[in-house]
Amino acid sequence: MTETRRALPSLDLLAGVPTPALVVDVDRARQNHRRAVASLAPGQVLRPHFKAHKCTALAHLQLAHGATTVCCQTTWEAVVLARQGVSDIMVTNQVVDPAALAELAEAAGAASVSALVDAPVHLALLEATARRAGVSFGVLVEIEVGMNRCGVGVESDALVELATAIAASDVLRFDGLQSYDGQVTGVIDPVARREASIVSNTLTRRAVERLRAVGIDVPIVAGCATAHLPFVGELDAWTDIQAGSYLLMDTTYGAFPDLDYPGALFCLATVIHRSPERIVLDVGLKHTAVDRGPPTWVGDTTAALQLSDEHTAIAVSPDSPLSIGDRTFLLPSHIDPTINLYPTLWFVDGDRVERHPVDGRMPDRTAPQL
Amino acid sequence: MTETRRALPSLDLLAGVPTPALVVDVDRARQNHRRAVASLAPGQVLRPHFKAHKCTALAHLQLAHGATTVCCQTTWEAVVLARQGVSDIMVTNQVVDPAALAELAEAAGAASVSALVDAPVHLALLEATARRAGVSFGVLVEIEVGMNRCGVGVESDALVELATAIAASDVLRFDGLQSYDGQVTGVIDPVARREASIVSNTLTRRAVERLRAVGIDVPIVAGCATAHLPFVGELDAWTDIQAGSYLLMDTTYGAFPDLDYPGALFCLATVIHRSPERIVLDVGLKHTAVDRGPPTWVGDTTAALQLSDEHTAIAVSPDSPLSIGDRTFLLPSHIDPTINLYPTLWFVDGDRVERHPVDGRMPDRTAPQL
Repeated sequence: MTETRRALPSLDLLAGVPTPALVVDVDRARQNHRRAVASLAPGQVLRPHFKAHKCTALAHLQLAHGATTVCCQTTWEAVVLARQGVSDIMVTNQVVDPAALAELAEAAGAASVSALVDAPVHLALLEATARRAGVSFGVLVEIEVGMNRCGVGVESDALVELATAIAASDVLRFDGLQSYDGQVTGVIDPVARREASIVSNTLTRRAVERLRAVGIDVPIVAGCATAHLPFVGELDAWTDIQAGSYLLMDTTYGAFPDLDYPGALFCLATVIHRSPERIVLDVGLKHTAVDRGPPTWVGDTTAALQLSDEHTAIAVSPDSPLSIGDRTFLLPSHIDPTINLYPTLWFVDGDRVERHPVDGRMPDRTAPQL
Repeated sequence: MTETRRALPSLDLLAGVPTPALVVDVDRARQNHRRAVASLAPGQVLRPHFKAHKCTALAHLQLAHGATTVCCQTTWEAVVLARQGVSDIMVTNQVVDPAALAELAEAAGAASVSALVDAPVHLALLEATARRAGVSFGVLVEIEVGMNRCGVGVESDALVELATAIAASDVLRFDGLQSYDGQVTGVIDPVARREASIVSNTLTRRAVERLRAVGIDVPIVAGCATAHLPFVGELDAWTDIQAGSYLLMDTTYGAFPDLDYPGALFCLATVIHRSPERIVLDVGLKHTAVDRGPPTWVGDTTAALQLSDEHTAIAVSPDSPLSIGDRTFLLPSHIDPTINLYPTLWFVDGDRVERHPVDGRMPDRTAPQL
């Protein structure tokens, strides 16, 4: 609570910013980024996940301070990053939709671009797209290490067959493996989380060894998340650490006792109603994601918040000094889907305020740029 | 389930639409709209809530089929509606933020625009804005009828004082009352919901009578929602029925036994992963709001869905014919925040597919139009 209060951006500085607004403390983001880079072992690189913020201005901040590559989750994100001059982009997803394949090809015309596969049809789609567009793609085989989402089994024949087929293609490049143990990222207890990560690490090493045993080099093994950072140097299977949340953080990760990354993202709100017993803010479900629970109000971090589409009602004591027109902050519980709700981020850097577009959001398919 | 299957848009017709995409069945939306209009009593008008879809193309559909006015929740929505030629716009919210007041003034330069107040400071802000911009505003006093959000008490002195002050202003027009009993909209049981609505109706009538007793005419009493439509003709306190969800519907309202409004909104998704035991779709928390629970998969409406930021994993039987590249639909659980996630809606009308922008979403504050 004390820490939270100390960390809030200046309301005076933000007086001209329309609410609801998402505010980034750039200095804290930079410090968080340096801390993440410093936690890596030799042989590991930070490949920050663009999906967390979808803002190329933040990607450039990450690339200016120790990250040399990025990853992203959608092909539109790859297009935006490539248009902004980012040279090495991994799409950490299978690409199937025809429009998405076309976007991947556009990005690959301007940057080194890779994507994931876990079935022969993914490979065939990438190969056909690369030939048609006259580009090449890097490809990683995704392995399944306990999340029960995408990927082939570590012991499957498909693993070796896919890697062999990629290596044999003249328009694809075998970049390595994607191994994402998402089931680990929700484990709050540091000891249990580290143990679960070591299980994934062992599975991932086994997949690498199977490929090496048949003569296939595995230059990249991508995976991990912010939850792995406290012990990521011990996880020797991974080369590319695709953490994203560490930069801005949220209250979900804020509850992890070993994650020393202060929050750098704040939802600025205006009080639009005041009764003796409550205030109502001009933010709601359209301004803060609730899939991991409601946001936290900085004025009373224990207060229960009642959210509707465009309002948040908060019980306050009758002697609270807040009145209509005052401004305050909410702390998001999950940054990725929260930032996805905003077209603009407001950066506070020292005494400067700058606005930047969240340009990696889903594009308007009625707009001329498409 | 049978009904759901029968109602699905044609996948063939949508073959060229990039996924994830939100698809509107225009014919069903039109039928739902006609049904809502037909449920009103004499003296009541449907004032469809723009916040539900934020799409001016849908507002025009509503205005072409029996609605003469609209309401909206944000001032940006009012600006967009006014720019698109809508002539009568009620903002069902208190307007406090300076940028929001400027937007309200812009809208009032092109249309008849009203907003809510529940404190003298709201009135002062509207009056100062109207004078500065050389426009006038309609004003409604919001009363509190059990939702515990905004509004003044039905028996409060503030009710009469505010209405009197509005009526005395040379730049404001007293339009009446806003009475929104949001606590009723979640009551599934029709009998309990109707009884709760009658309580709100009585409270609202009391507020109207208090104003009439001091010589203040109350031309408009706005309120209600889709949940009230089955018995809205009995609710004689309200003149302007501000329902929104009825047009496209969602699975939350779909569970209300007396709401005969079939779903007209579908999230189109592509299968990007297939294992014997599951499929994974290219939609996730950034494409479907989960504040009222996960969406429903049309392939098995009882299936448990595991959503992450950009994926939905669904357990299927090994003999399911679905494979990578196939497309399917999810049914949103809450339309307002789901549509807010998309820049574009795809309209299916007979054998035509058209795209329309969700132009009422929060604008990019870095864009030139601002």
